[in-house]
Amino acid sequence: MKSDLDRLMRENDIDGLLITGPGQHNPPMVYMTGGAHLTAADLVKPRDRDPILFYSPMERDEAARSGLDARNVMEYPYKEFLKESGGDRVRATAMRYKRMLADAGLEAGRVAVYGRTELNAFLAILKALEILNPDLEFVGEPSGDSILLQAMATKDAAEIERIRRVGRITTEVVGLTADFLSGHAARDGVLVKPDGDPLTVGDVKRRIDLWLAERGVETPEGFIFAIGRDAGVPHSSGTDSDPLALGKTIVFDIFPCEKGGGYYFDFSRTWSLGYATEAVESLYDDVRSTFDAVMGALKTGEPTTRYQEQTCDLFEGLGHRTTRQDPLIQSGYVHSLGHGIGLHVHEAPWFRNQVYATPRDVLRPGSVVTVEPGLYYPDEGMGVRLEDSVAVHPDGRIEVLVEYPLDLVIPVKGAR
Amino acid sequence: MKSDLDRLMRENDIDGLLITGPGQHNPPMVYMTGGAHLTAADLVKPRDRDPILFYSPMERDEAARSGLDARNVMEYPYKEFLKESGGDRVRATAMRYKRMLADAGLEAGRVAVYGRTELNAFLAILKALEILNPDLEFVGEPSGDSILLQAMATKDAAEIERIRRVGRITTEVVGLTADFLSGHAARDGVLVKPDGDPLTVGDVKRRIDLWLAERGVETPEGFIFAIGRDAGVPHSSGTDSDPLALGKTIVFDIFPCEKGGGYYFDFSRTWSLGYATEAVESLYDDVRSTFDAVMGALKTGEPTTRYQEQTCDLFEGLGHRTTRQDPLIQSGYVHSLGHGIGLHVHEAPWFRNQVYATPRDVLRPGSVVTVEPGLYYPDEGMGVRLEDSVAVHPDGRIEVLVEYPLDLVIPVKGAR
Repeated sequence: MKSDLDRLMRENDIDGLLITGPGQHNPPMVYMTGGAHLTAADLVKPRDRDPILFYSPMERDEAARSGLDARNVMEYPYKEFLKESGGDRVRATAMRYKRMLADAGLEAGRVAVYGRTELNAFLAILKALEILNPDLEFVGEPSGDSILLQAMATKDAAEIERIRRVGRITTEVVGLTADFLSGHAARDGVLVKPDGDPLTVGDVKRRIDLWLAERGVETPEGFIFAIGRDAGVPHSSGTDSDPLALGKTIVFDIFPCEKGGGYYFDFSRTWSLGYATEAVESLYDDVRSTFDAVMGALKTGEPTTRYQEQTCDLFEGLGHRTTRQDPLIQSGYVHSLGHGIGLHVHEAPWFRNQVYATPRDVLRPGSVVTVEPGLYYPDEGMGVRLEDSVAVHPDGRIEVLVEYPLDLVIPVKGAR
Repeated sequence: MKSDLDRLMRENDIDGLLITGPGQHNPPMVYMTGGAHLTAADLVKPRDRDPILFYSPMERDEAARSGLDARNVMEYPYKEFLKESGGDRVRATAMRYKRMLADAGLEAGRVAVYGRTELNAFLAILKALEILNPDLEFVGEPSGDSILLQAMATKDAAEIERIRRVGRITTEVVGLTADFLSGHAARDGVLVKPDGDPLTVGDVKRRIDLWLAERGVETPEGFIFAIGRDAGVPHSSGTDSDPLALGKTIVFDIFPCEKGGGYYFDFSRTWSLGYATEAVESLYDDVRSTFDAVMGALKTGEPTTRYQEQTCDLFEGLGHRTTRQDPLIQSGYVHSLGHGIGLHVHEAPWFRNQVYATPRDVLRPGSVVTVEPGLYYPDEGMGVRLEDSVAVHPDGRIEVLVEYPLDLVIPVKGAR
């Protein structure tokens, strides 16, 4: 939680955080400012002190909405720095940052740098800053394991409620999608529209986009609605022109967020239209029994790797190959079991193989994670993934954030 | 244009480009891959050679759609690097990058780094890489003026057509918005809904979101629909609870992009519902005459700063203050005249004051830029901005990409 930041900074010998970039679709900035509509801003958080937000004067109202100590960046006169630097724009900007950091009390020390923004320009500035003020060191951290992500990895009740709310919208749209498919008749093994043309993946995706927009959420990372062979490739987002054929697996994996890049939900179901073939049913049963076993085993205090290993044990026991056996396989169980969700669709804690796990990958009160085992056989034209998102509560209770039926077959008129 | 990249790399002593991050909502990666749906990828472009895309095997289909030389990142065994690095994850990742870069022919030299992605983890990797291979130097460039942005600053006919297409959708939605407002009756000086409740800025914004979603475009950076005092603060996005009062300026600035973070359009109009007060009309006339003068003066080969200066001359001549006189003013003409549009809503060429302009800020065949003079008086509760986007063609022709009426007053039943 945000209140852990000072402790985490101390433990990691970090004197300050420098967060840069826009106020939206930029998780570190959204986390610290609440998602103000800022085109570009900087936030400095010295250890054990309140953060300061530096904003452009055109955005003073948006900056004020954050409730933070906010300062107009024009008080740091770029024009003068540019003169002083002999026209070197990178150096002039670095001089401005040096002054801003000094005003925030950071004249020396280790500063962790954050922000989802264009690397190119900021890398130049950081290099120039380290030359201007050799007492400052700008540091990065291991991917997925920064102190900011460690703070984000546990959520308070208000954050969990925001995720749950996006989850309710998500499953409402999933339900509308199932009804929409069911409402179409089948002809020659594919769903058809009233005009007789085949209904396509693209048609369905456009509907889903609309239903999501009507409910005020966004899908900045898209979503997956993939049928047949595409369903057998975990991150294939689907092919717009594909008709919706009966009896083939559809992997529907949808991960919207609050408008402006706020909290995400993440949810998957696998469907087969009209009926399921024996092969599909058997694959589905293997994923379903594993999903149920893992969901039933989740417990606060446990390292997440335990569940990744459990999943590999179960799938291997059912005769499937896993990436634990060979990281290069492209069929069988080819990804990890889940991940945290929050202001990123993928964040800590991670579910990793033992080789990669860290002591921080543990289920704790405030953890919000997905559980999403899947099996993939692209050459047989099928894949199955089931995914729910759960929150771990202070009393140890594991809450499935939004319940939704796990049925495989979507009934269709005129099927078989 | 993309075909300028090798020349620009040579002129700037750059041996390679390293682009990282997702395949969508990441302009450098979208530019090079065409917008494949990749969660995380790396692209290496050595000078005078074709780029190589490194992808995660789950996303092999998406990588293949790019048409690029694509390599599975699992061929670079992280597990072995991790062992070799004694469990140091940052170093292990750096070893992987070192090998990938070497396979692309980059064992030494200056590599410019790009990508809209989380700074934190990549900064750590770059620092470790420079230690692992001191013959490699990772470089950033001045903000807004990288060689990639210099290439992007001129567009080919296909890129311009994509921008124009988003522009047609944008203005269609602007027209729907005007009709929607006109379709409401006024009571007690504000628009009311059929149930008698005041229509609010939030109501209008939700409609606009839907109309955009129906047409398959996104607004990852939101849009501005701001009335009264908010209209007097250029980047205020508007206050949802504000009623739509008659006779007050509404600044409607809308900048959608293709789904997945493709090409942007950028467009503004200022409206006054029912009637315009004398003060509003006078402010509007000052912006309109300046807008017309600048639009009429645009010419290929001219430095953009000429138009920024022209705008300041005209506004100052009309008695308004400008940031050329004092960068700290918050009323009058407080921003620059325009900017390029492309895969970023703001990109090169820039319209800057002479102090900041570079020799690259010139209108050239392939330039696509906004022209958006505005005047702001927040304390008087008003602001006016007018904005069209134009393309410069090889024959020197300046095309207003999408024409839309410049009317100030939106007629309303029952007004006055």
